[in-house]
Amino acid sequence: MALIVQKYGGSSVANAARIKKVAKRIVQTKRQGNSLVVVVSALGDTTDELIALARQVSQNPNGREMDMLLATGEQVSVALLAMAIHERGENAVSFTGPQVGIITDRFHTKARILDINTERIQKALRRGHIVIVAGFQGKTETEEITTLGRGGSDLTAVALAKTLKAKCCEIYTDVDGIYRADPRLVPEARKMSVVSYDEILELAALGAKVMHSRSIEVGKKYDVPIYVLHSQRNVPGTLITKENKKMEDTVVSGVALAEDEAKITIFHVPDKPGVAAKIFAELAKANINIDMIIQNKTQTLATDISFTVFKNELSRALPAVRAVAKKIGARQVSCDQNIDKVSVVGVGMKSHSGIAAKVFAALAKKKINIQMISTSEIKISCVVDGSKGKDAVRAIHREFRLGKKN
Amino acid sequence: MALIVQKYGGSSVANAARIKKVAKRIVQTKRQGNSLVVVVSALGDTTDELIALARQVSQNPNGREMDMLLATGEQVSVALLAMAIHERGENAVSFTGPQVGIITDRFHTKARILDINTERIQKALRRGHIVIVAGFQGKTETEEITTLGRGGSDLTAVALAKTLKAKCCEIYTDVDGIYRADPRLVPEARKMSVVSYDEILELAALGAKVMHSRSIEVGKKYDVPIYVLHSQRNVPGTLITKENKKMEDTVVSGVALAEDEAKITIFHVPDKPGVAAKIFAELAKANINIDMIIQNKTQTLATDISFTVFKNELSRALPAVRAVAKKIGARQVSCDQNIDKVSVVGVGMKSHSGIAAKVFAALAKKKINIQMISTSEIKISCVVDGSKGKDAVRAIHREFRLGKKN
Repeated sequence: MALIVQKYGGSSVANAARIKKVAKRIVQTKRQGNSLVVVVSALGDTTDELIALARQVSQNPNGREMDMLLATGEQVSVALLAMAIHERGENAVSFTGPQVGIITDRFHTKARILDINTERIQKALRRGHIVIVAGFQGKTETEEITTLGRGGSDLTAVALAKTLKAKCCEIYTDVDGIYRADPRLVPEARKMSVVSYDEILELAALGAKVMHSRSIEVGKKYDVPIYVLHSQRNVPGTLITKENKKMEDTVVSGVALAEDEAKITIFHVPDKPGVAAKIFAELAKANINIDMIIQNKTQTLATDISFTVFKNELSRALPAVRAVAKKIGARQVSCDQNIDKVSVVGVGMKSHSGIAAKVFAALAKKKINIQMISTSEIKISCVVDGSKGKDAVRAIHREFRLGKKN
Repeated sequence: MALIVQKYGGSSVANAARIKKVAKRIVQTKRQGNSLVVVVSALGDTTDELIALARQVSQNPNGREMDMLLATGEQVSVALLAMAIHERGENAVSFTGPQVGIITDRFHTKARILDINTERIQKALRRGHIVIVAGFQGKTETEEITTLGRGGSDLTAVALAKTLKAKCCEIYTDVDGIYRADPRLVPEARKMSVVSYDEILELAALGAKVMHSRSIEVGKKYDVPIYVLHSQRNVPGTLITKENKKMEDTVVSGVALAEDEAKITIFHVPDKPGVAAKIFAELAKANINIDMIIQNKTQTLATDISFTVFKNELSRALPAVRAVAKKIGARQVSCDQNIDKVSVVGVGMKSHSGIAAKVFAALAKKKINIQMISTSEIKISCVVDGSKGKDAVRAIHREFRLGKKN
């Protein structure tokens, strides 16, 4: 009997009707002869509502109490789902994260899983029960309730799949898989049937609506096959798994657009060892996430450094950048919020040459100017003008014939 | 430093504004030099809403899962209240029932407290923290979440006050104390400043809006003074405590009306030993609560037996009564839903004579016919016609001058 871990997101259990539908699917899977552990998120927008409630009583709620509050969301879901499964005549038993022994560190609201004591789950499985586990939560060794932060329920599911040595981890969500390009930009975009962990990590913008990259990293680390599926439709989804030979035949797996970054340039940075380190150390201290970094020395004694930050961190980033620019004797700081980043990803790039040239040519044909380029083994990212990102995605999608059946 | 246990009901914490008000009162009590343990119910109608949600997914929800679901209500309250206290600059720490070691039996949705392991509370108190505990919930020895049923949060508070040897247990609610008669019936009714456990147990109908009798029984058993107070107004409430000499000066403490009972009569019951036992054993088996029982033998070989049941159990009670009546060879079963029960209570009755006569005279003056009478050491209850109950309460209230300042 194969053990499967399934995870249902908040929209999949937003109301009683959907909970019943999910219960039906779970019971079907069970009756096909599988053993089942099901991880559930909070109903619909519950977590956001609880956060809003907290803000009404406190401007800056204490993390420990925030976790006490938020952990209730998933506890409601697991109880209701277990009831709905009973209603279909199967045994199910729900557990909170603390009850199943998901042990985390003490960093409230963004705790990391340290260990999972699966004894209680194993016992329930041996009795033939469907085990329902509250996602997103755990406890410290001193019995404090913790939550795992964004994407926490996915993380619970992948970590349980790993610890229980499950056959796979199925993530049920409100999209039916991961597409080679955002279908809102490219209507003819096709779904990927299989993709590697690394590709999906690089295609964060495409995967973001589906799974937080933290969970994919855990899946990659422990080689847990992750299957992304639609919770209400019976259609094949996308399997995220380790890289294999066959994947290399597909040179480009997907093309993603990021519209949430801004470009900062520091002009005339003195060209001395350690200067770049100083800049980015200051920004790290200010807890600013940096994405692309480009340095190109074109002058004799100085260089310009450009990098991208997330727009929502820009107001914190700029003062920090200006301060460090002054300190190191740079000349000027400029900022451009009107940029888009287009990324082309594929494990096949490793063994195929000329991909970058083909990307640049596709953009040139559409008269799209490239401001920054950065590449990795399996990715090429270009920063273009903010008005050109969507066109760039479409041009690359067409160039590599991603709409064709593979 | 005195330790006080405070309990706030659902209406006292129904929204953010009220939670902040409660936090203010708690901080004041703390700053007056007290140590504080605070028990909180679920926000407003949360529990009812959760029950409604459960009924949407299951017609007969499993008790274990129901407890998993309902326990979230109080967990939300404690977290929010702790945050609101932090906002006022005091240290507070919230705990669920399971976290503070409230150990119960395994009877889900109506568990009984077996033991309280106060180590964690004591530790937090020693650190100078205000301890906020989720009412209504506990866990079994095998780490299953349980709830304590109706009035469960009061029970948590009284049990904690007992175990922690608190000075008193303050129950904050949306009424400002217990009145000698229902002010809706008798506008001039006065509040009791002090009343004995036994009196309030007999005056269940007056106390019902304030506290479930289960908690008062625990208070009585362990001699925990219980102070009933209004959560939003600063007025003296009612102290429920053990009987003392001074109380006996007040012959009648209160008069209560119960409109939720129905009378059942079994006619011509064969007059043999064990027949009454048979009748009430059958009803107990059917889980029917019986209140007054009257038997008066007026015939040679048979007797009539009347008793009252709660109207909402009547539809279950009647078939059971008819079945047992047939079995024992009784003649007929009748039922009257149009009755009221009026109860007059006072520990002073023990040492004063003629109280019953005075009660009956008061009713006679108003031409109110008495259908059933039952008395205890400190109570006289009369069943009267359903249209006469309110008049009976007023007549007795006037007869004993309960509206006068005592």
